[in-house]
Amino acid sequence: MNYYVMTLFPEMIEQGMNTSIIGRAMAKGLISLETVNIRDFSVTGNGRIDDYPYGGGAGMVMQPEPVYRAYESLVSRIGSRPRLIYLTPQGRVFDQSMAEELAKEENLIFLCGHYEGIDERVLEEIATDYVSIGDYVLTGGELPSMVMMDSISRMVPGVLSNQESGQYESFQDGLLEYPHYSRPELWHEKQAPPVLLSGHHGNVDRWRRNQSILRTLRRRPELLQNGEYDKKDRKFIQSLLHDEYEEKITEEEKRILAKLLAI
Amino acid sequence: MNYYVMTLFPEMIEQGMNTSIIGRAMAKGLISLETVNIRDFSVTGNGRIDDYPYGGGAGMVMQPEPVYRAYESLVSRIGSRPRLIYLTPQGRVFDQSMAEELAKEENLIFLCGHYEGIDERVLEEIATDYVSIGDYVLTGGELPSMVMMDSISRMVPGVLSNQESGQYESFQDGLLEYPHYSRPELWHEKQAPPVLLSGHHGNVDRWRRNQSILRTLRRRPELLQNGEYDKKDRKFIQSLLHDEYEEKITEEEKRILAKLLAI
Repeated sequence: MNYYVMTLFPEMIEQGMNTSIIGRAMAKGLISLETVNIRDFSVTGNGRIDDYPYGGGAGMVMQPEPVYRAYESLVSRIGSRPRLIYLTPQGRVFDQSMAEELAKEENLIFLCGHYEGIDERVLEEIATDYVSIGDYVLTGGELPSMVMMDSISRMVPGVLSNQESGQYESFQDGLLEYPHYSRPELWHEKQAPPVLLSGHHGNVDRWRRNQSILRTLRRRPELLQNGEYDKKDRKFIQSLLHDEYEEKITEEEKRILAKLLAI
Repeated sequence: MNYYVMTLFPEMIEQGMNTSIIGRAMAKGLISLETVNIRDFSVTGNGRIDDYPYGGGAGMVMQPEPVYRAYESLVSRIGSRPRLIYLTPQGRVFDQSMAEELAKEENLIFLCGHYEGIDERVLEEIATDYVSIGDYVLTGGELPSMVMMDSISRMVPGVLSNQESGQYESFQDGLLEYPHYSRPELWHEKQAPPVLLSGHHGNVDRWRRNQSILRTLRRRPELLQNGEYDKKDRKFIQSLLHDEYEEKITEEEKRILAKLLAI
């Protein structure tokens, strides 16, 4: 996977993508990263790439020509026209399935806006995807492009070890993950759950699955409808509904679970 | 606003938060940032802070004691126990209203996990908020904490100039922003919309509002119900429904707008 980032802050991207799993994948040659400084393509030659917006209003707008020239210089080097992702609050909201889909590409270009935004006409000409990482306002497209590259890279074959890949199965079920415990067994008078120390794999798996359902119910109940529930899951849900489980749930939570069983 | 970030990659945070609006706010003293390297609080003294998970499975878990010691050392220096945000896909989903709420705090601590996660017992003891920046998996909490700090900082009084603050009104209406245009008027045979060059402020505002509604309809129709629509908005929506506007919309889009008018 080759990433190309068109930005006004190339050093921010380069420094931020150099650690942990992604840095290791770059060292292995599984991922490459190149930045293009849009300012180098200033039309006026003095590094200026923005101007006042037509129609007035606050902020400056990045002009079409410098962005276009930066793009043309980049694609002529790449030798093809890969998908170009423009990071914007006006885009489709990024999620794990989009990360998996984008990980299949050979090259990806990210375009990071700043100031009030980028002239619409150049976006019409070069952007293939408009993506938002969430419903909040950020200073520019740099952090969102780094978030996307981190998430996409994890899905590129070979980047995660087999062991690491396995660990997200529970997320892919559509439910939240169960809680984790490590040494020591007793910490601040809190005991790690005895079932995890029992060595009984079936019981461990059951406990984790139950915790996953319970946690999703409490923190993100709207996600529960994405899950698939087998006979044992339904039995656990029944026990929650009848207050037979050690952790009690509210009446509102019972209504949500009852609906789930009815599907 | 004072940010404190507990992390295994302090240099990533420090380098990434140094540009643009946020860097300027730090230089002005409106925002401060301090990182704490959890590895410095290794119990074994060799920098190791993780161990195998009880119950087996892939990945390593960050142990409770190093995290707790890093936290205690930090809060004793701060002299209070500020809100501590643990970045996790299992958290409440971050949005603009949360950014506004958190911007009112004087101090905020971010705890960045890595590997499979952090021992649940220390989270129970120190975390006040569990936050996710979106439904995707990332390598660690560093990028999400930077995203949150960027977004929150923009809401801290004095960080944005008056002019910059004004520019997000359209986002706060709950609709997506209109498109932007700057010099030149004619670019690649594409004309900037003549209304924006007319100098007629009322018409400019109307055109932008219409584009905002149209764009939200096309890209994020589920957001339309958050908006408030006055008489002129409703007239515009009627003109779309009757194909009297220059841009045509689909039958599905008409169904969405018709529902909106019925509210």
